[in-house]
Parts: sequence; structure tokens; C-alpha cells
Amino acid sequence: MTGAELTVARVGEEGLLRRLARLIGPPPAGVLGVGDDAAVVPRGRGASLLTTDVMVEGTHFRRAWFRPEELGMKALAANLSDAAAMGGRPTYALVSLILPPETRVDAVQRIYRGMLRVARGARVALVGGNVARGETLSVSVTLTGDFPYGKPALRRGARPGDRIYVTGQPGLAHLGFLLLLAEASERGGRRGSRTGTTDPEDLWAPPPRREPDWRAALRRRGPWEARALRRFLAPEARLDAGRALRAHRPTSLIDVSDGLNLDLRHLAGAGARLVVEPEALPLPAGFGRLAGKLGLDPAAAALHGGEDYELLFTVSPATAARLGARAVLGDTPAHRIGRVEAGRPGVWTDGRSGATRMTGGGFRHFG
Amino acid sequence: MTGAELTVARVGEEGLLRRLARLIGPPPAGVLGVGDDAAVVPRGRGASLLTTDVMVEGTHFRRAWFRPEELGMKALAANLSDAAAMGGRPTYALVSLILPPETRVDAVQRIYRGMLRVARGARVALVGGNVARGETLSVSVTLTGDFPYGKPALRRGARPGDRIYVTGQPGLAHLGFLLLLAEASERGGRRGSRTGTTDPEDLWAPPPRREPDWRAALRRRGPWEARALRRFLAPEARLDAGRALRAHRPTSLIDVSDGLNLDLRHLAGAGARLVVEPEALPLPAGFGRLAGKLGLDPAAAALHGGEDYELLFTVSPATAARLGARAVLGDTPAHRIGRVEAGRPGVWTDGRSGATRMTGGGFRHFG
Repeated sequence: MTGAELTVARVGEEGLLRRLARLIGPPPAGVLGVGDDAAVVPRGRGASLLTTDVMVEGTHFRRAWFRPEELGMKALAANLSDAAAMGGRPTYALVSLILPPETRVDAVQRIYRGMLRVARGARVALVGGNVARGETLSVSVTLTGDFPYGKPALRRGARPGDRIYVTGQPGLAHLGFLLLLAEASERGGRRGSRTGTTDPEDLWAPPPRREPDWRAALRRRGPWEARALRRFLAPEARLDAGRALRAHRPTSLIDVSDGLNLDLRHLAGAGARLVVEPEALPLPAGFGRLAGKLGLDPAAAALHGGEDYELLFTVSPATAARLGARAVLGDTPAHRIGRVEAGRPGVWTDGRSGATRMTGGGFRHFG
Repeated sequence: MTGAELTVARVGEEGLLRRLARLIGPPPAGVLGVGDDAAVVPRGRGASLLTTDVMVEGTHFRRAWFRPEELGMKALAANLSDAAAMGGRPTYALVSLILPPETRVDAVQRIYRGMLRVARGARVALVGGNVARGETLSVSVTLTGDFPYGKPALRRGARPGDRIYVTGQPGLAHLGFLLLLAEASERGGRRGSRTGTTDPEDLWAPPPRREPDWRAALRRRGPWEARALRRFLAPEARLDAGRALRAHRPTSLIDVSDGLNLDLRHLAGAGARLVVEPEALPLPAGFGRLAGKLGLDPAAAALHGGEDYELLFTVSPATAARLGARAVLGDTPAHRIGRVEAGRPGVWTDGRSGATRMTGGGFRHFG
């Protein structure tokens, strides 16, 4: 099959990005982080970060699941998470909306309100943007940032002996997604409808703006249900953990957007052998029960989720000794989940019969 | 009608942007140019510009008209034009693609090749970006820039006595669009098809990559047809004119993307009374003939086109005297087309019976 016949679905997101990176060639002098969470470009005597992310209807969100405010919050949070994953401080954001002409003005204003709420909390200014007509609604955010506290933290840099940590509860957002999916399929798939505007269940419809009954009921099933929904619908970027982390000089850093397994592989791709200790994964009983209700093994749920927006990082053995097995970074807990070894790069899990190579899922575009 | 019931189509792009600007509130100290061609943010002791623009399938381009390379070229050129319109030097670009999964990898590579060609010419580095799945293909570019030659040039600043200039041939790109539209309707509208991939006329199909016969034939109808098509399909941003212009200290500056008439109004919106002298509009005989063939009055064609990516600016009377009625900025001709007067702001045309207020068309999103 020649390149002309290959489709994007067949090569996948990473295959496509690899091909495009080859076309673009090496970055200019002073530019770091191409292929990392964000690009880092020289700016005066310092450096700036640039990153962009998009939420596309039908791919990243459904109008029947997200309130417009939540969509705005999540669109900005995804970018803030990339800034945190570079050890950067976010500064300015540009917003670009593609809107079907029948979109209600009120819904667009609500998207912006959500975005502004997150922006204020993160001390980011929305300085401009663009609106264009298109058949599929999307919210695209580009974020700039700087590095007032030190050098950019990159995906590469993990060394044998380092320890691996992850913040918060990986897998939680994906459980929120599965909850919504199960609810939609129970109720005949109507929640999955893209027609939105004529659907009486549409969360984008005119007031009342309160949470609809079905979603409130889902949340009230239990505290882990509520947490999972919140983490999927309106995640917070770990800016506090990113700031606190700088004092600990992480040797490598990435945010978990494609799932812990895949993002561990992104770290390993820079030449490290990462060994995950499954018994060290954060698997609280309530998380495990919710995963079980949704038909998942708890460890698999933690490893193969997506859209976590947690921070995954490695630190030196001395720093790990200071941090311990459970650290708190800002307001965010972090768990030590494994170690970096000498030897063949890749992601391995530590079992009774020795390390075995980890393969399998995670969130893949075009999959 | 309340805001909740109003649609984006009803309030239009400018109505929507006005409402969003009210939500966002005034920009932070040191931030300029919000609502201008690009945002200007403080950066160290200088300033950076940030701008973003998108090309959406079905709105800004059709696969049956554009080669992928041209789409890439135009997507970047639109952003470069915004940088030129701020008197800035473009530096780095981020590219964000939304791709239907059936998109051919080869087509994506061709989009990038076009973009890279333009980027190299403008000394811009593509430093990253994003790909996501979605039903509607779009190419979004975010560009940064700096101001090594002086302060940002804004839309506001025109003073009574100043003269108005425009580069190149406003209206030309729109004639290219109309040529393609007429050709498509002659051939049964098949060129307008969005299905692309199964259409034997699809310019995104695998090789041969040469221009298809129908488009070559259209170009060969005459030099103005060729120019118009080129200006619509693969416009060049007026970076050379922007650079040359800095020496002349424009009192206001904008790029013509919505049509001369609408972009004059954007300048006027900052509080100026602009009087266009119709006999001074650049209306070469060949342009007039092509407009006539397409059923347009030549002056109307120059005033009410769109996607020109020309520069529109005002200069002081002394500078205008030096530049004359026809200037050359870099490699680009510029025509003096009117003057700024004291009095009620707005755009007026100078006629035998005095100035009359100009109204009407131009390119409007969601229209």
C-alpha cells in the first residue's frame, strides 16, 4: 500500500505525526520540545511555550453529555495541562471556534463563561481568537506560557535508578466516560445524538441551566461516580502540582492524556526502561468497585484510561526517598508507581515471574 | 428574542464577537490589539503577536477546487497576513488539523508541503501542533511574531488629512472564487461535492498530481483569469509590503480579508471618517473585463470581494506626498484610494454630488 492510498485511520495519530515530523525536519536552533507536550521557543533571554489542543464534537464531546460551560473548561484545561507538563506557567490563550450556523449564541457565551472561569483561576488572559462557520462544532485553544521558575521539563531525561510518580487518580476520567456511555445506551442511545438542537434532553438547550435529572441521578449513585463524572466533564489541570514539582527537579515529565500506559510509552520512547509496580498503582476500594461495575479490572482501568490530565514524572532516587511512596504536590496527591532501570527501553510491569512487557490500549485517535 | 434563542447565523460573526468581547472584558495591562488583526502581548522588554486562523472544508475551501498544497499555503498565508497587518515579523507557527479518518495520509503530507514552502519563504518555523479526528476537515494555524522594527501598527490611529492606500488588486481573489463557482455550476455542481474521496474529479486523489485539465483550461482563458485563480487558491501574504511600510509609519493598518468595504469599516470603527475616491481604485482594463464576464461592476468587484490578503492603511499627508498616487512597497504596488476627513466616522464614497455613505457587502461568516 503506497502513501497515496493509506488513510489517516490506518496509520493512526502517532503514525501520522511521525510522518509529518519527518517532513518538517529538525527544529531550528534553540527550539525544544517539538514532539513534547508543548513547543518551547527562544524568546529574548528566556523561552516561551506554545501549545494547542482542540475539542471536536462527536470525537471529544457530545452535546448531550457536556454543558457548554464544561466544554469551555475542559478545552482550556487540556492546554493548561500541557503547560504544567513542561514545567511552564501559562500566560495567554487564543480561542478558535468552528460553529454550525444554527448554534445558539447563548451556548457560545456559556462555553466562554466556562473558559473564563478556568482562565481566571490559572491567571491566563484570553487575548483573542476567531470564529468560523463549519458543519462540526469544535473549540480550539492555543496557549502560550513562560518559564519563570527554571528550565522546561521534557519527556526525555529519565535515568536508571529514577522513580516514577503519577498524580491523582489515573483512569478516573475514563470511568466517567464509561458511565455516560452506559447511561446513554440504557436509554436507547439518545444521549449520543448529535442533532442536539431538537433533542429535548440536549444540555445546550435554553434554560433551565441546572444539571438535568438523569445526570444528577448518575452523580448521586456514589462519591466515586461523582468524581469520575467531574474528572471527565470538567477536569482541572494539575497546575498546582506542576508548580510544586519544580522544587523536586523531575528528570522527565509528561501529562497523561492518552492513558497511563501510552504516556509511559511516550516517556520510554525517549530511551528509558520504565518498570511499573502494579501493587503500587493508586487503586482505592471505591475506584476498584466502580471499575468493576463498569466491567473493568481496577489496574487495567488505571492503566488504560484516557484524558486523565494527571502529571506523570520521574525523579532521582534521592528525591524519591524524600517524597516517599505517597507525596503531596500542591493540593494534589502523587503516588510512586515504579522505577527506571538500565536495559532495553520500553514499559514493563513487575510481576512475581519478573518483568513483562506492557502492551495494549489507551486512547488512540483515528483508532 | 432572547439570547438563548438567538442563533449564530442571526447575529453574524461580528455580532457574536462583540458579545464575546463583552464577556471577556477589557484586556490586561500591556495587552494591545484585541479585536485587531492579531493580539499583542508584552514579552520581556518587547512585545509578541499572536494570531490564529482556520480553513474549514465547505466554508473556506472545497476539495474539488484546491490542491492540498494550496490549502496548506493559504492557511498559513492568512496568518502571515495578520502578522503583516500588525507591522510584525512572523516567527513560529503551530498547526492543528481536524481530519476525517478516511483522509489520505498523502493528502495530509501535501497540505504540510504547501505550508512548509510558504513557511520557509517567510522564515517561519513550524514548531508543533495537533491532529484530531472529526467529520469536517479543517486546518488551523496559530502564529507568533515579534516587532523588531518598531511598534505594532493598529487599526485605530487614522487622522483627518491622512491618505488611504491599498496594496495589490483588491477584489481579485473573489473573482477567482466566482470563476470556480461558475465552472462548477456549468458542470452540474459536481465540483462542489464534499464527498471528495469518491469523486473522480477530486484534486486530493492519488497521483497524477498535476493540475487537472478543467482547472488548467480555466487558467488559460487569460492572464487575469490565471491571476484571479492564483490569488484565491494560493495567495501570498504581503510581508514584503508590510516590511517596507514600516519606514512610512502608517497611522493605521489592517489586512483586507473580508473585502475592502468591510475592512474600511473596521478602520472607520476606530473613529475615523474615510472617504473613498472611486476613480482612484485600481481597476485595470483586464480586471474590469473579467469582472464584467462574471456579471459584476468593476468598482463593486474591487470593493466587495473577500480574502484579498492585501494591506489597507493610512499615512500622514506628508508621507502620502512622498509616496504619490501609486507607490511600490517591497515588490507590491499600492494605490492611494482616498482620504481621511474630520466629521462623522464611517466609510463614504466621493461622488459628483458629494460624499455618500457606503453600505453593502463583503464577506460575512454565518451570513
